[in-house]
Amino acid sequence: MRLAMNSALTGMQFSGIRRFTALAKQTPGCILLTLGEPEFDTPAPIRQAAVQALEAGDTHYPPNNGKEALLKALSAFGAKQRLSYSPQEIIVTCGATEALLCALTAVLEPGDEVMVPTPAFGLYQSITQLCRGVYRPVDTRAAGFQLSADALQNAWTPRTKALVLTSPNNPTGCVYNSQSLEAVAALVRRTGIYVICDDVYSQLVYSPNFVRFAARYRDLRENIIVVDSFSKPYAMTGWRLGWLMADGPVKQQMEKVHQYSVVSVTSFTQTACALALESDISPMRETYRTRRDMVCRRLAAMGLPAEKPEGAFYIFPSIQKFGMSSEEFCTRLIREGGLALVPGSCFGAEGYVRLSFCCGDDTLAQGLDRLEAFVRRLEQE
Amino acid sequence: MRLAMNSALTGMQFSGIRRFTALAKQTPGCILLTLGEPEFDTPAPIRQAAVQALEAGDTHYPPNNGKEALLKALSAFGAKQRLSYSPQEIIVTCGATEALLCALTAVLEPGDEVMVPTPAFGLYQSITQLCRGVYRPVDTRAAGFQLSADALQNAWTPRTKALVLTSPNNPTGCVYNSQSLEAVAALVRRTGIYVICDDVYSQLVYSPNFVRFAARYRDLRENIIVVDSFSKPYAMTGWRLGWLMADGPVKQQMEKVHQYSVVSVTSFTQTACALALESDISPMRETYRTRRDMVCRRLAAMGLPAEKPEGAFYIFPSIQKFGMSSEEFCTRLIREGGLALVPGSCFGAEGYVRLSFCCGDDTLAQGLDRLEAFVRRLEQE
Repeated sequence: MRLAMNSALTGMQFSGIRRFTALAKQTPGCILLTLGEPEFDTPAPIRQAAVQALEAGDTHYPPNNGKEALLKALSAFGAKQRLSYSPQEIIVTCGATEALLCALTAVLEPGDEVMVPTPAFGLYQSITQLCRGVYRPVDTRAAGFQLSADALQNAWTPRTKALVLTSPNNPTGCVYNSQSLEAVAALVRRTGIYVICDDVYSQLVYSPNFVRFAARYRDLRENIIVVDSFSKPYAMTGWRLGWLMADGPVKQQMEKVHQYSVVSVTSFTQTACALALESDISPMRETYRTRRDMVCRRLAAMGLPAEKPEGAFYIFPSIQKFGMSSEEFCTRLIREGGLALVPGSCFGAEGYVRLSFCCGDDTLAQGLDRLEAFVRRLEQE
Repeated sequence: MRLAMNSALTGMQFSGIRRFTALAKQTPGCILLTLGEPEFDTPAPIRQAAVQALEAGDTHYPPNNGKEALLKALSAFGAKQRLSYSPQEIIVTCGATEALLCALTAVLEPGDEVMVPTPAFGLYQSITQLCRGVYRPVDTRAAGFQLSADALQNAWTPRTKALVLTSPNNPTGCVYNSQSLEAVAALVRRTGIYVICDDVYSQLVYSPNFVRFAARYRDLRENIIVVDSFSKPYAMTGWRLGWLMADGPVKQQMEKVHQYSVVSVTSFTQTACALALESDISPMRETYRTRRDMVCRRLAAMGLPAEKPEGAFYIFPSIQKFGMSSEEFCTRLIREGGLALVPGSCFGAEGYVRLSFCCGDDTLAQGLDRLEAFVRRLEQE
């Protein structure tokens, strides 16, 4: 006999991305354009810095929030993007995931609401539920994935505690425009809610003049929590390293969650992280931009409408004209077309599918050929 | 203007161990016997395995629960200690801390109570509060740090959901005897509560015939969650790696917490972990045993009574005869004696201090000389 477990957990499903990836892997020869992971290995100099630290015996407890040199490097790196956070206002975390856990745990009381513009990464809902908060999606599909004062006002309630802002966005690749950002800022000024900026794709932006929310609204400093990660820009997904930046008193509460969740990140990876910040990622970004342009052309030729991604390595075409659910579309695409995409339903947005273009060029071209053949077949049904 | 943060967090204090360590570090020449970290670097072959993985480009997302080879190695390692968990019943975690977070989050509803025999590591209380649970200490001071059916019954309520069992114990070094373990098992059979076995010191036991709770009570499998760590036995504190073992359905819920907290541990450390499990740690254990015997002799000669530690690298002598609080004793010891220990109050046990003997031999001998001189001076006051 054993007592019941935490009810906030037992009803939660595992990520739909995982489920579809698993289905694809069981299908021989299926091409996967499902994952948000750069196909590159981590650049050799970054790996070499970790090797040197290991050989030097850097295997003891590091400071909870990260080593001083890395915190200074992150502060300086932020300053280049007009973010103003001192080393004492930064925590190095086990990826953006732990950063989001710290941020949401630090601000939410049970029953507090979190506004999330959808389509959105499913993790925000999962962590909100883990915190016994209430997930409140703000549907942006009819507005070209942008926000407005009205849309935000309709979703806001007196229990709203935070809003998660992901720009560039996963799964759409969209960057929020000035009107969207102004609407968020106005809501924050009026209500005092927190804005959790999931900026993990902020270095992968293809349009000029991109300004991060925390840089644009420095007057809202006490309301802003910045989440960032080494995973995507430096191809360091397996390292599980990210960071948090926030105003001192807010950071101080998140620091407790960090300490009681993981104590600290791995000691001998931190010099490598500081080195990563110095790398020139423009060649990687140009590779993605070329692919983005190619994918946009191909989808247009197939007659699949999509907003042009201004960042990240995702595109989110509409499949509404086929009159089937995104889950059915993706299941048939795996079984009949040998290609795996992620259904929009996994991001709270029916009628769309997510295609990742962070794979190799050949895989991508072949995947698009398969998508085209499948779409042609559907049109003839 | 910003809204209030999570009230479960804002009232919580940082660890007293950290506070005393910080005070000691500000005191020139002070010797620290405060930390629970082996002074050894991680053995070279283990470090070399991580170096090879880095050089081979093992830098991509690993499976959430850990790589198959490591899960198999952990399962086989457990079997040698008569633990019966399949690779599918194991999660590799960011140290024992994340394992404890997963365990307590998975079982606790707000208001649920967690029984913890004290003195105890402060993290149990912190994580319980983070989960909005109620921390219920079971004082073992008058019973030689052992448990009884009566003591457990007095602390149990209908809201009790779990008990944390740490054997060998931090801070006492004590191993629970048969009577203690039987009392716990009987309570579990009667009430269905979970036993979270914090077994991070289970490889550092000096007495023969030690049997882990999960091996002794296989019939209570569905109630038991085993927490373990690479930190202490393999001197891998900075790697932040541990693991969880539990019956399938219980593991499945903890897996969600793990996924939403950190996704996975670092990819390129996992081969090194599997290698660590093969190492012979008996020389390290013998070093600690020799130190343990020396520390016991020295404390007895000083007239400081202490239970003889049967495991771990801590001893918890009584300072009751000096008629001052453990905080006052330790503060004066730093300022007047140049030695830092941790006050018993940090472990919920006034009248004691914790001394760690995982430092180097010379440091330890010098620290004990300083303790003796301080104690002699107090006796003459």
